Amino acid sequence: MVEIKTYPIERLRGFSTRVFEHFGVPPQDAALAADVLAAADLRGIDSHGVARLHTYFDMLSLGRINPRPKVRVVRQSASTATVDGDNGLGLVVGPRANEIALDKAAEFGSGWVSVCNTNHFGIAGYYPLQALKRDSIGWAMTNSTKLVAPLWGAERMLGTNPIAIAFPGLEEPPIVIDLATPAVAYGKIEIAKRRGEKIPLGWAIDRDGNVTDDPQKMIDGGALLPLGSDRDHGGHKGYALGMTVDVLVAVLSGANWGPFTPPFALRQQVPERSVGKGIGHFFGALRIDGFIEPLEFKRQIDDLIRTFRATKPAPGATAVLIPGDPERWAEEERSKNGIPLVLPVVEDLRDIAKHIDVPFD
Amino acid sequence: MVEIKTYPIERLRGFSTRVFEHFGVPPQDAALAADVLAAADLRGIDSHGVARLHTYFDMLSLGRINPRPKVRVVRQSASTATVDGDNGLGLVVGPRANEIALDKAAEFGSGWVSVCNTNHFGIAGYYPLQALKRDSIGWAMTNSTKLVAPLWGAERMLGTNPIAIAFPGLEEPPIVIDLATPAVAYGKIEIAKRRGEKIPLGWAIDRDGNVTDDPQKMIDGGALLPLGSDRDHGGHKGYALGMTVDVLVAVLSGANWGPFTPPFALRQQVPERSVGKGIGHFFGALRIDGFIEPLEFKRQIDDLIRTFRATKPAPGATAVLIPGDPERWAEEERSKNGIPLVLPVVEDLRDIAKHIDVPFD
Repeated sequence: MVEIKTYPIERLRGFSTRVFEHFGVPPQDAALAADVLAAADLRGIDSHGVARLHTYFDMLSLGRINPRPKVRVVRQSASTATVDGDNGLGLVVGPRANEIALDKAAEFGSGWVSVCNTNHFGIAGYYPLQALKRDSIGWAMTNSTKLVAPLWGAERMLGTNPIAIAFPGLEEPPIVIDLATPAVAYGKIEIAKRRGEKIPLGWAIDRDGNVTDDPQKMIDGGALLPLGSDRDHGGHKGYALGMTVDVLVAVLSGANWGPFTPPFALRQQVPERSVGKGIGHFFGALRIDGFIEPLEFKRQIDDLIRTFRATKPAPGATAVLIPGDPERWAEEERSKNGIPLVLPVVEDLRDIAKHIDVPFD
Repeated sequence: MVEIKTYPIERLRGFSTRVFEHFGVPPQDAALAADVLAAADLRGIDSHGVARLHTYFDMLSLGRINPRPKVRVVRQSASTATVDGDNGLGLVVGPRANEIALDKAAEFGSGWVSVCNTNHFGIAGYYPLQALKRDSIGWAMTNSTKLVAPLWGAERMLGTNPIAIAFPGLEEPPIVIDLATPAVAYGKIEIAKRRGEKIPLGWAIDRDGNVTDDPQKMIDGGALLPLGSDRDHGGHKGYALGMTVDVLVAVLSGANWGPFTPPFALRQQVPERSVGKGIGHFFGALRIDGFIEPLEFKRQIDDLIRTFRATKPAPGATAVLIPGDPERWAEEERSKNGIPLVLPVVEDLRDIAKHIDVPFD
């Protein structure tokens, strides 16, 4: 039995804002960063919401993240730019860089922004949701600390490198895709370990590169497998997707890539060399009316959504879902009933509160 | 024992060119179309090379494909365009639309072209290879006849919807990614059937939506599974990638999407309704110097390639590969030693030769 406490999202948002402000993050930036975290908690991606606030707190406390970055464009063309995040919070640099992509799209039809010298930016899905407000198709990617083996490799070389993209409907809610490039999230390994359960084959290898069903063996120097898991099931494809993200976010911007991507948390291993600045993000925006009447596009998306929902379901399945359904349902429920936090997360927040004299309970 | 005959690529290229010309395809277009097919044969993607020539022959014979299309931009912004392929060969419309994306990138930093009213365009990997010649990162996607079930679905709803992208190295060969979005290629189902072998679980379902290891049951109204195969192994991700491709290539351009995508071959089932024109493609180009000095980018790609090659290999594996390695090795070998064709393909080519009075042996 896991102990749960439930908080209204506005409580968590307010607390996060005050924590960031405590470290000198300007109020507008602090609110923005808190909003990105709140989006994760609302959408049910618990690992990326206030559960991470203590890590941001640690990094800010130690001066590892710049609370007042000068985010600047270091190179650009009409529809592309490279942004240096000045080692700011990814939760602030990310939304700013995403805006630059959207502004370029407004002017030139599309905008593509690669970002170096930044830090973890929350859920990738947050960014294309902003693009929807401007009738654009938004893309977001980021790299992160190594955790995933390439196909046929026996060690961690890639981050979980997510790709997010969203498409607006008219009467239907948008299609919102947010997928990490390994077969499974690291969080599921931790949950299995906590419960003393085995993990399915195809999720992970041990430190020698052997496939394992023991979550502890993945944690002790093993690695996650890429989407597709093995050669027979397309593991080379998940590996290629993870590498694509790394190139777009980091090689293109001058950030660190692959095994050299710096860690998010203090307990994580420091890479053996540096090949760039910070981690990297990549944002894209395609203005729909650069291709087709937005109304016609959205009508077709509605038709597509309804067509896919009407797919004959497989035995044991209720229905085929549309990407973004589970997160939207979570958001509807949690907006009303609050965010359920497990006790360790509540204790993390209380610990922060104690240190910085901002109340939380 | 499969009977094989080997042909120099120039023989096949010349024959394909003359076949297209026979139907009134202008010489320059015929040579272009033959070049796209040759790229597949050279790179070892046998299913997409001259093995498909008889299908193009059938479609052209019946007037289902326009040999002299007026490919035109129907809508555009500085960095985006929608192209109507006038029901031409995808092997001609594709390269033209890709050029438009590259020209836009040359002028505005990036170019993004969605294409309707077109037909099958060969291997997706052909297109980003053209972008490399112009120091750009090229993207290509297409949809195709339904063959893949969404996660939790019991019927074919999506094509194999590939995504290709390439990144240039300096001293190292380029990273060339070309991945279809199901767990496995349909060709592998056919090979297993021919050999009387079972297929791995995770590749396919039967007509009732049950997982099957019998290739015949997939062929008889079953479906391929998306990359990731099942929910535990990330099947929702492969499904989301397939849907992403469908939206970018078809909803954005006004082509048919999902189960309504028209068939490539005559024997394939005609969709129950039409929601647009032809099939769809999507091409993208990002000019590298819109982000970073191309020399610096390529040096980093070299470093990345060497770093990933040096990954500790898993037990039983020789080494970690870089996406594009197998295709490049095939091209090196086949450029010298010729293209091995199985007897049924040779007989197809002889059959074409007989019908149109162009010699082949």
